[in-house]
Amino acid sequence: MPLVRVVVTLKPSLLDSAGRTVSDSLVKLGFDEVEGVRIGKVIELHVTQADPSRLQAMCDKLLANPVIEDYQIEVVD
Amino acid sequence: MPLVRVVVTLKPSLLDSAGRTVSDSLVKLGFDEVEGVRIGKVIELHVTQADPSRLQAMCDKLLANPVIEDYQIEVVD
Repeated sequence: MPLVRVVVTLKPSLLDSAGRTVSDSLVKLGFDEVEGVRIGKVIELHVTQADPSRLQAMCDKLLANPVIEDYQIEVVD
Repeated sequence: MPLVRVVVTLKPSLLDSAGRTVSDSLVKLGFDEVEGVRIGKVIELHVTQADPSRLQAMCDKLLANPVIEDYQIEVVD
């Protein structure tokens, strides 16, 4: 059964306040090599068939908000 | 500047109720090829240097909860 991974991230022009907080926390913990952090979602779908156009429709209708988010679809196996 | 992607997912033995809800919703929308969904986080770190042992320490101390979550670290470029 194919496994599909969808990675949903905020568009780069939008402020990611959770990512900013994580970045500040890492620097406070001593990880001063960290320059910036962005946080997104990863959605792993087990599907009986991985049809690219239907996967894109799932993203546009439910998995992502195309106004503020970008997404990448990768068929893992 | 290296970009590091950390993917954090719930351990497979734990119930992912958000994933279950998304799976049910996709089936209701007509995407009946969906058999199961798991949702996790993706954390993109811009770092001045990607030291594997320090990246693992970041995950163990802040980015993931090793009791309930697994993580994968990949250096993108």
